Amino acid sequence: MSKPKGFEKPAGVRDYLPHVVSKLRHIERNVLDCMSEWGYRQIITPTMEYYDTVGVASSTSDRKLYKMLNNRGTTMVLRSDMTTPIARVMGSLLKEESLPVRLSYHANVFRSIEEEAGRETEFFQTGAELVGNDSAEGDAEVIALAIASLQAAGVETFKISLGHVGFLTGLLEEVLPDKTIEQEALKETLLNRDFVGFRERLSHFQLSVEQRQELEGLLRLRGAQDICLQATALSSNPRAIASIQHLCKVWEVLEAYGVSEHVMIDLTMIGDFSYYTGMVFEGYAAELGFPVCSGGRYDNLLTQFGRSVTATGFALKTNRILDGVDLHLPEEEPPVLIAYDVNSRREAFTHAAQLRQQGKIVITEHIEATEKLESATPSDSSVVTYSQVIRFTDGRAVTV
Amino acid sequence: MSKPKGFEKPAGVRDYLPHVVSKLRHIERNVLDCMSEWGYRQIITPTMEYYDTVGVASSTSDRKLYKMLNNRGTTMVLRSDMTTPIARVMGSLLKEESLPVRLSYHANVFRSIEEEAGRETEFFQTGAELVGNDSAEGDAEVIALAIASLQAAGVETFKISLGHVGFLTGLLEEVLPDKTIEQEALKETLLNRDFVGFRERLSHFQLSVEQRQELEGLLRLRGAQDICLQATALSSNPRAIASIQHLCKVWEVLEAYGVSEHVMIDLTMIGDFSYYTGMVFEGYAAELGFPVCSGGRYDNLLTQFGRSVTATGFALKTNRILDGVDLHLPEEEPPVLIAYDVNSRREAFTHAAQLRQQGKIVITEHIEATEKLESATPSDSSVVTYSQVIRFTDGRAVTV
Repeated sequence: MSKPKGFEKPAGVRDYLPHVVSKLRHIERNVLDCMSEWGYRQIITPTMEYYDTVGVASSTSDRKLYKMLNNRGTTMVLRSDMTTPIARVMGSLLKEESLPVRLSYHANVFRSIEEEAGRETEFFQTGAELVGNDSAEGDAEVIALAIASLQAAGVETFKISLGHVGFLTGLLEEVLPDKTIEQEALKETLLNRDFVGFRERLSHFQLSVEQRQELEGLLRLRGAQDICLQATALSSNPRAIASIQHLCKVWEVLEAYGVSEHVMIDLTMIGDFSYYTGMVFEGYAAELGFPVCSGGRYDNLLTQFGRSVTATGFALKTNRILDGVDLHLPEEEPPVLIAYDVNSRREAFTHAAQLRQQGKIVITEHIEATEKLESATPSDSSVVTYSQVIRFTDGRAVTV
Repeated sequence: MSKPKGFEKPAGVRDYLPHVVSKLRHIERNVLDCMSEWGYRQIITPTMEYYDTVGVASSTSDRKLYKMLNNRGTTMVLRSDMTTPIARVMGSLLKEESLPVRLSYHANVFRSIEEEAGRETEFFQTGAELVGNDSAEGDAEVIALAIASLQAAGVETFKISLGHVGFLTGLLEEVLPDKTIEQEALKETLLNRDFVGFRERLSHFQLSVEQRQELEGLLRLRGAQDICLQATALSSNPRAIASIQHLCKVWEVLEAYGVSEHVMIDLTMIGDFSYYTGMVFEGYAAELGFPVCSGGRYDNLLTQFGRSVTATGFALKTNRILDGVDLHLPEEEPPVLIAYDVNSRREAFTHAAQLRQQGKIVITEHIEATEKLESATPSDSSVVTYSQVIRFTDGRAVTV
């Protein structure tokens, strides 16, 4: 282990320089404003939580949690998502709040992932939770808000894939009853979008031709509302049928929102969080191969925090949008430079204050300092450019 | 050690509920906008840093640093301030940036302080750094920006106490040469604003009457510009004199900014960060007994990150302003509730979208859900109030 040098920062984390912060803040502000217009109010929770409460309840695998001991010897974690801390708040500070409760957040979360080099271990999520609404209307509201949020973030072309954890679970209960390990292995292939692996695994099981067709048929269940009909024909399992009927209702509400063109039903979509209990969805931007948002229903999570209440929500993967999507942001106007001599300070500062009140960015410098600035190597690309330079000498302005 | 229950959060950290987040976000946005108008651009750095670089260079005492091991066995810290990470960035990513560089931030920082019960261990700071300007103009700019930032945050009445670490250091070099331990003990009493303790400690030293008068005279050096004259008369030590001459120049520039009415020279002010090398200041709000901002010059810190360049800056103690100052914020308009039956979804959602485009907050609910809402215990103070309720039935709006 070599000792880090003075300029080093840890692997997996990053410094956001001003031009990137502008972009990140633009996404944050627009998305939170959008969520606010839908009645979702912001919450902020601590960076550190108890491992035994929030750490254990989170769907992040144990080896990916950042753990530390506090000075009383209790194990703490850096939060790995915001859904679990919000569940904790719903069971404590907001215990008496009448339902439904609509909450939003923009927060940094932490995942230790040494094995995947180059992945970020600290990144931002911007999300919303609707607590205490167990209907298809609630699920559709959250999906419609995810669509509005992606648009507010500046993502122009995207598609939402919508599934339901109950459909596959129902099929597997029927076809592979009591074979939990085999069921998990099949789910794992779907989570990795490994459809070849899914077929291969199926071939190892003692299944009838009908059973194999039923499970392989799942892979074809991707499309618009007509998928609902096809899926109903595929299985007679009550849980699978109830799941698909619920998705059809959600679709109907999404049509009323006028956003179903952005949505595709995909029954191979089962959600990557263990706490999901119902519909799950992911959003894909046209230019990217990985999701830019994900969400779903989690009706049992809050029970762990003493409040048996249903919930549904989503989070934008803000860093992926920041880095991967070509957003169209307004140009920033370069600053005005006001250079002054010692006899013109008052006039220079007064003028600067006036321009700032008009919303302009104004830098003031003693005139000798600006001469040094101007003699800096002109090839240096980082030299700030100014929209205007105003000189004040002997108490009077000379605009250049 | 008892196992934490489901609803517990760690001691020293807090959940910010929506009405508090509104206030915090208001401060954050207004202060960052103010800093931006002065040409300071935002930076974001990671929550975790290497102990051996940023941890050691920070002025936070070792026992107050939150430490953890990463999975390679390297000691990490949660950042305890933003000045040290920014110094690291100036020595790495911004190494080639031409000077001066103006940076701003709003960030949560961490201090483990088990011995002081009730103190927060995670809290927000909103600050600015001016790197590469070693003049009195630079110091004054940072003080004037601190004043503008306090005003932007909504702090109406406050006073800035301005001192210089070199003045006391100069006096002590002269009066107690080579007595480092005694010098530190005297500084400690001033840091704690314990003037009785300062006098008491002085009485233990073998000092001439003149020497005692010189050091005790320090306690009277608090006031406006005339303090400069008095201070110059108090000592003949070159370092002390250079320090006081610098403060007089800073005062002159602050007068040109038109903000000297907010400033008081206080030569007992020596700054609570070990990296301060020049002028130091603290801001006190009228209603609070503790500082709401602090700052100073730190000309040697960046050398530790491979870049020998001067710097000066400050941070607002954002949580103290949030909790302690009576800010005048604009009233938030309550949301509009649109209730709809299954035959009126499209009309309801379309109307909601129109109102949101006008900047209104709109919550939509299925009409059965709203009937449950309205039958909720009317004594429940947390029930959301609406500015307006609009019902859509059979595709038509009925305003209530």
